[in-house]
Amino acid sequence: MHKCTKIGIVGLGTVGTGVTKLIEKNKDLIRKRCGFDIEIGWLCDIDLERDRGIDLSKYRCTTNYMDVIEDDEVDIVVELVGGTGVAFDIIAQALKRGKSIVTANKALIAKRGKELIELLKNSPKSEIGFEASVGGGIPIIKTIKESLAGNRIKSIYGIINGTVNYILTRMEKDNVDFGTALKEAQKKGYAEADPSLDIDGIDAAHKASILATITFGRFIGIEDVFVEGISNIDLMDIKFSLELGYRIKLLAIIKENKGEIEIRVHPTLIPLEHPLAKIDGVYNALSIFADFAGHIMVYGKGAGMYPTASSVIADIIDISRNIKNSSTNRVPIFSFVDEIDVKIKPVEEIVTNYYLRIMAVDKPGVLSKISGILAKQEISIEAVIQKGRGEKDLVPIVMTTHEAKEKSIQKAIEEISSLDIVGGKPILYRIERLEDGPLM
Amino acid sequence: MHKCTKIGIVGLGTVGTGVTKLIEKNKDLIRKRCGFDIEIGWLCDIDLERDRGIDLSKYRCTTNYMDVIEDDEVDIVVELVGGTGVAFDIIAQALKRGKSIVTANKALIAKRGKELIELLKNSPKSEIGFEASVGGGIPIIKTIKESLAGNRIKSIYGIINGTVNYILTRMEKDNVDFGTALKEAQKKGYAEADPSLDIDGIDAAHKASILATITFGRFIGIEDVFVEGISNIDLMDIKFSLELGYRIKLLAIIKENKGEIEIRVHPTLIPLEHPLAKIDGVYNALSIFADFAGHIMVYGKGAGMYPTASSVIADIIDISRNIKNSSTNRVPIFSFVDEIDVKIKPVEEIVTNYYLRIMAVDKPGVLSKISGILAKQEISIEAVIQKGRGEKDLVPIVMTTHEAKEKSIQKAIEEISSLDIVGGKPILYRIERLEDGPLM
Repeated sequence: MHKCTKIGIVGLGTVGTGVTKLIEKNKDLIRKRCGFDIEIGWLCDIDLERDRGIDLSKYRCTTNYMDVIEDDEVDIVVELVGGTGVAFDIIAQALKRGKSIVTANKALIAKRGKELIELLKNSPKSEIGFEASVGGGIPIIKTIKESLAGNRIKSIYGIINGTVNYILTRMEKDNVDFGTALKEAQKKGYAEADPSLDIDGIDAAHKASILATITFGRFIGIEDVFVEGISNIDLMDIKFSLELGYRIKLLAIIKENKGEIEIRVHPTLIPLEHPLAKIDGVYNALSIFADFAGHIMVYGKGAGMYPTASSVIADIIDISRNIKNSSTNRVPIFSFVDEIDVKIKPVEEIVTNYYLRIMAVDKPGVLSKISGILAKQEISIEAVIQKGRGEKDLVPIVMTTHEAKEKSIQKAIEEISSLDIVGGKPILYRIERLEDGPLM
Repeated sequence: MHKCTKIGIVGLGTVGTGVTKLIEKNKDLIRKRCGFDIEIGWLCDIDLERDRGIDLSKYRCTTNYMDVIEDDEVDIVVELVGGTGVAFDIIAQALKRGKSIVTANKALIAKRGKELIELLKNSPKSEIGFEASVGGGIPIIKTIKESLAGNRIKSIYGIINGTVNYILTRMEKDNVDFGTALKEAQKKGYAEADPSLDIDGIDAAHKASILATITFGRFIGIEDVFVEGISNIDLMDIKFSLELGYRIKLLAIIKENKGEIEIRVHPTLIPLEHPLAKIDGVYNALSIFADFAGHIMVYGKGAGMYPTASSVIADIIDISRNIKNSSTNRVPIFSFVDEIDVKIKPVEEIVTNYYLRIMAVDKPGVLSKISGILAKQEISIEAVIQKGRGEKDLVPIVMTTHEAKEKSIQKAIEEISSLDIVGGKPILYRIERLEDGPLM
């Protein structure tokens, strides 16, 4: 009879502290749900002095993670160290001793997921849970791996970085530029002192890699993700987009069509009336289009001590139930028992709608020249806004296009850039219509 | 080695047909995910002639459900007959033979859930899956039972009847009365010829009963749910609500506070800016507030052949994985191993904000009389709209209140009704602020 799961938490940062607090608060409730206890066997961190609002004297603590890994009584090692170095060693050592792992470490999975699969082969009773790696408290991993297991998933669109979404929301609502909004995010603790992982889209790309991997049946690493961040976003483009009926979001886009996968993270115009356009601030949301379930959206807190702890505990309970029933790995780590033969589509090959802003001199014939270049690449214009006539030297010409090839639009942009009536490189964003079309 | 799960589908209506089609289309994909096949051993329906877009000659068919139940090779009986009579017999007979059950039958669980628990005691290897019973293709049951297993859930708010939501959306957008919108819903196939189960709120109440049961650790049946339907909704109240910043939705409300549970389904004013207010047409959505995860919302198609089939298959796969690993019932049917001592709060005891519309003669002193009656019950007014001065005999006085006891507002309404300056019984709706307040 499994009466207790013993866990060792390695890494007592925000999430590790949240997990400890959750178990302290909801231990009885978990016992009533599961019929067993979750017990903290070890807390491990290099700093055991800092005040975290937990009474560490109640726990067995160590600064050496091998104490946790070498304890035969520990069933699950909760890796909350982060990064892809030490964290990987901790996991590898723990797996070698037959323990299971719960982690929130997206970078590790996106970069070294293949190695994890290899390690698991030699440790058939071990599992790795990573619900907390994408979408904080949102149960997106379980939804894809289990609830949609009968579906062919056609596409996933996600707002999966709360820091970036907060900055974009503030820019629009407070009418401020990127730098000001970033500073506010940092002051509020929503952005790190070095915000590059978030604002350059890397964090979202890690998450996109994980989502694609569990959706399509083949390991899809971070190197397969096309990424553009938001650090060059101009308030002007946010405003023009609104005028055209769109909101700019940093969107993770994952699509499959005839065995070809698009996977990219970039600023994207999405229709104002789509539910994803209405996700404000630090919230995350993901839209999934599946052949039978149709459009499903999940929404919640994408980060933070408590939401992330909720997902970590869900994995701990899930694995504990498997330990109790000797059913570990009843669901394969990355959803599939058999690999599927899918290819990554190069970004040059994608076809989508585009938003273009060109700064040009205010003279007759400019639009005709630009549209001529687009026409040569077989790109047709859907809408044009020309404003600010008069005072300044350069005025913005904003246009949206019908569907076009990325390759063609890049060629056109190059040619437009070289016109002497145009100042600087045109601004280019992709548009996603997110149409809930026929799925079957 | 478990190579194949054999299922028998009893009831070939919309959902049964959808499940059959899903397996036909995605069989290979399911095998790649699970490492085993889902095979249809039997199709059973009293009508085997009707064209459903399936080639029945490929299957072993019967009109007698005992053929399915008595087949030793069948692992899972998929009960899609509906109702609480024959469906219950089918389940009881199948459980007796050690088979597991997957069902979409909300009425059965809400009314006879306690009997199901008893039957399961004598059939310890059997499971009952009912993901499809609430929210169609939305994975709400698994989210509550598994993903939020470490959380104390404080409240759930759900738009869980697509027919009603479609009618309310059409009334507002097309500026038509209830009867017109209902007729359109019937024409489009969104409402039954006899729409009472939907528009009287009974269907939503069944679903609320299931949600409350898996959330709070005690069986909470349909008789515990306070229900008001939408058949008396006046377009006027939809308009006044909008003016006050609210939209009227048929909302299932489930809350727990200090061991007392509120469970009710009624037309409810919710703030326009809350994501639930933006759920249009036949879509369903549920907001869950949990102590650690915070606010989570799930959104998707709440009914229909394909979305519901997606949830049925998710359960079939889940149970198959348990059969394969001898781990059936690793998650208890209603989430809890140990019952929790909770009480249902009588509706008279609830405290909420209210919307009142009183038709009164247009004379000085009327508002003073009405507000005097409210004041006597310690109800304070938050906002008042008085319109339509002049021509008609009776004009609407619309008001919202601060928090008040249901008992008090009912007393006040009775007294207001009896005033000779007032025509008819005042219209009363409850308001939910859905504030995302501190959860911890």
